[in-house]
Amino acid sequence: MALIDAVKFDGKGLVTAVAQDFETNQVLMVAYMNRDTLAETLSSGDMVYWSRSRQKRWKKGETSGHVQKVREAYIDCDGDALLFRIDQSVAACHENYFSCFFRQNVGGEWKVVAEKME
Amino acid sequence: MALIDAVKFDGKGLVTAVAQDFETNQVLMVAYMNRDTLAETLSSGDMVYWSRSRQKRWKKGETSGHVQKVREAYIDCDGDALLFRIDQSVAACHENYFSCFFRQNVGGEWKVVAEKME
Repeated sequence: MALIDAVKFDGKGLVTAVAQDFETNQVLMVAYMNRDTLAETLSSGDMVYWSRSRQKRWKKGETSGHVQKVREAYIDCDGDALLFRIDQSVAACHENYFSCFFRQNVGGEWKVVAEKME
Repeated sequence: MALIDAVKFDGKGLVTAVAQDFETNQVLMVAYMNRDTLAETLSSGDMVYWSRSRQKRWKKGETSGHVQKVREAYIDCDGDALLFRIDQSVAACHENYFSCFFRQNVGGEWKVVAEKME
């Protein structure tokens, strides 16, 4: 597939994927895809990652229901990062925050600056 | 520094850093920092990366003048990715696009969807 041929996977066969909420523009999470889960993401329209810790396919929301639907996909200049603008169901973070980036540097400390989703 | 102690650097001593334009919310680039360049970024307020290809400190805009000024910094839930909301001077991409993510999947091909900056 021409789209995937442009991707420069790293030594472990992975590419960095950034998920950004289509509606709010919030950056939700950073994770990784291998060739197969990228192909599945592009063909299915659902975000499917590769879990580095569990070393297995990880369809976002498969157990939680917090799926991510692809609206737009971008590749960066050197082909080693992808940006997906998505529709996020409920929350991206497993800690139930909308974004995994819920801690901000406030006066030299990481402070929680978001509220958990219901 | 408490901020840096929360960061989980990878086996190569790096953490993924996403730069997002503060004003437009565009995701501009994905790059990496080591402990020293992260410390410098946090203390100076200018984005300073670690270049994996050149294996050296890389202050964004040092030669081009296209500096990135930190407005906000966030850490993700598992501490292995950082999000910086920044003010971008001129263009983030070395190809002179505002964002490195200037190619979008349009009908199964990566198409340039942005215009170069002057």
